Amino acid sequence: MTDKNQVQALKGFRDFLGSEARKRSWLIQKISSVFNRFGFEPLETPTLEYESLLLGKYGAEAEKLIYRFEDNGGRRVAMRYDQTVPTTRIIAQYRNELVFPYKRYQIQSVWRADKPQKGRYREFLQCDIDIIGSKSTLSDAEIISLYYAAYMEIGLTSLKIKINDRKQLIAAIKDNGVTSDNIFPAIQTIDKLDKKTEEEVIMELNIKGIPNGKNLIDTLSSSTPSQDLEDIMSYCEKLGVPKEAFVFSPALARGLDYYTGMIFEGIIPEYEVGSVGGGGRYDNLINDLVGVDMPAVGVAIGFDRTLEAAEVLGKIPSDIGSSKVLVTIFDENSIASSLETTSWLRQQGIATECYSDSSAKFDKQLKYADKKNIPFVIIIGPEEIEQNKIRIKNMKTGDQELVTRDSLISFLS
Amino acid sequence: MTDKNQVQALKGFRDFLGSEARKRSWLIQKISSVFNRFGFEPLETPTLEYESLLLGKYGAEAEKLIYRFEDNGGRRVAMRYDQTVPTTRIIAQYRNELVFPYKRYQIQSVWRADKPQKGRYREFLQCDIDIIGSKSTLSDAEIISLYYAAYMEIGLTSLKIKINDRKQLIAAIKDNGVTSDNIFPAIQTIDKLDKKTEEEVIMELNIKGIPNGKNLIDTLSSSTPSQDLEDIMSYCEKLGVPKEAFVFSPALARGLDYYTGMIFEGIIPEYEVGSVGGGGRYDNLINDLVGVDMPAVGVAIGFDRTLEAAEVLGKIPSDIGSSKVLVTIFDENSIASSLETTSWLRQQGIATECYSDSSAKFDKQLKYADKKNIPFVIIIGPEEIEQNKIRIKNMKTGDQELVTRDSLISFLS
Repeated sequence: MTDKNQVQALKGFRDFLGSEARKRSWLIQKISSVFNRFGFEPLETPTLEYESLLLGKYGAEAEKLIYRFEDNGGRRVAMRYDQTVPTTRIIAQYRNELVFPYKRYQIQSVWRADKPQKGRYREFLQCDIDIIGSKSTLSDAEIISLYYAAYMEIGLTSLKIKINDRKQLIAAIKDNGVTSDNIFPAIQTIDKLDKKTEEEVIMELNIKGIPNGKNLIDTLSSSTPSQDLEDIMSYCEKLGVPKEAFVFSPALARGLDYYTGMIFEGIIPEYEVGSVGGGGRYDNLINDLVGVDMPAVGVAIGFDRTLEAAEVLGKIPSDIGSSKVLVTIFDENSIASSLETTSWLRQQGIATECYSDSSAKFDKQLKYADKKNIPFVIIIGPEEIEQNKIRIKNMKTGDQELVTRDSLISFLS
Repeated sequence: MTDKNQVQALKGFRDFLGSEARKRSWLIQKISSVFNRFGFEPLETPTLEYESLLLGKYGAEAEKLIYRFEDNGGRRVAMRYDQTVPTTRIIAQYRNELVFPYKRYQIQSVWRADKPQKGRYREFLQCDIDIIGSKSTLSDAEIISLYYAAYMEIGLTSLKIKINDRKQLIAAIKDNGVTSDNIFPAIQTIDKLDKKTEEEVIMELNIKGIPNGKNLIDTLSSSTPSQDLEDIMSYCEKLGVPKEAFVFSPALARGLDYYTGMIFEGIIPEYEVGSVGGGGRYDNLINDLVGVDMPAVGVAIGFDRTLEAAEVLGKIPSDIGSSKVLVTIFDENSIASSLETTSWLRQQGIATECYSDSSAKFDKQLKYADKKNIPFVIIIGPEEIEQNKIRIKNMKTGDQELVTRDSLISFLS
């Protein structure tokens, strides 16, 4: 028998019971329905890969967070850390079978041995959507409009899209005399203009050896969207993303150093925790990783944050967690009638439970319905059988009614 | 850059691209819709657990197959090996929050460092459905009827259910003078009556020190269903499982030693690979594992076999893999019209792709549709724009038609 102290989940890992698991499925189904409607295809890769595939791909700090070990056959293996690296393997391995531009989405767990804290877990769902093998700004527009459509489908209609062009940002930084090896450090600091004051950012730039921070910030704030961004936003409008959804953000940098063109981030104004996802164009990454020249553009939906936003803003149906009806068992003689009614309700598509113990007292059965938030209870005893009717009790109001089977449906809806 | 030789999946692990991934989602959605209709709730547990939770639970041979290692924090951890043991942890950990009988389903991957061979993988989906906390035969009937309903939903309507009672089987073995410590070895041999001849089984029993094998087999084959089985089958009939679906199989043993009552197995006669799932009652297991007294009954759907059966028998819709329409890009001037039409079709719920490169030759775009099995291609050039019409090409017949946007929908369906 297990040590009772260890009968618990590992720190940073989550159990999803009933309604939590249902909410997650609800969100996955909502967003995948959009991906499918946009003609993107799903991809699933294994949980374990050769360690060598992952090593050297994420930088030294991130690499410490990879779960990796030696398997029983002496192979060094690693658990999925992100979706990008496994996807590059797919591209290298199946390049003769895949049709390019390859449009795929991937919704799978990743594992990171990070310090657990609020909103940061060691196992969490990542949701990536990418177009691989196209340089065209039409693909950038497809990705943004797909991202936007997903939030419309969820009901998060206030979504704003902050957009910028990495090329334009880098040009502005260079024009301000920043040396090549200081460009990425500068980007990382500029990225903080959202959270820090202008003075703080200028000071941080100074510390990094970039003296004219004020100029740089002024240059950025007075700039207008590049031609690429103009094209992308105009294509997006035709694809159903209104102009007002965009916020041109010339200081938006996105942390990752592999972006090469358009970058964007989704924000829900009423949900102030931060970006709910983002992405951009990365034309060199796949070549750097697996030596296959493949321009690409993509987005990652922040699953946990988006789910939380949908929940906080009341977009998840409240009845998602429970059955609609509990059919009780009155006594041994009425079991058959109760089972038949259960089966009939299920055939009508109504989520129905039958109490699964014929010896349980009626009170216990009612308590079961109450605890599980089942709104209606059906009672079929000798009286009801004789009259060929069904007694239905509304658990909220306590009202009871004796109805025929056929009128049951209208009663329930 | 990665060593090119290791740019491949690990042996025993699978990549699921486009249509394969879609088929899997299709099956998961079909079966979960039935589970939800029956009032069962989903459960998801973490991929990693404390190693101590898993050790000592599966027997020495199975234990060798557990993926386990030391994490960065020096904890011994193990990857999910089945759903039963994590579920027992859930019951122990959340016993004051859960409502019993607890009806849950769990569809998640498990990992086993088994020798890879045809149909056996190191990562595969398990799909378990159980009622925990009920001794009643009504629960046995619920589980069987849910299992049956899932196959009806998939379209595998020929499903037969082999059923037996472990108690009855054990009584017959004891009556034939088999000693207590030889009961489980006897069950394991009898279980082979399906695949081996009677003579071979009798000989194997003999080797195990069970001399009167012939008597035993005769006793079994002349037996009739126990009262429990009669009740269960009669309840099932009320719940929509016809009598003819059952095959009373007095020699059915099911390998696992933890069953204590009804046991059953699903068979699809036209698909002869073997059982597509099975289960039974296990009233002592949870107590043995975590010291909580919980009678239980459940079933595991063999996901890969069921998917294969559905595929072989043509139950999976053939258009599951691709978009319905590709909207091509004629030239720079027609981009806006193509994008608007794409967006409009998607709003009508039609899976639509827009070719994502405005400089690609028309031929290349057609080839893209062809390779991806997209049945319709839309062409919008200067002529079409002037007439405010849309040209649609049926990729199978080669037929083209010039239609208005509104007549497009009827054309596509």
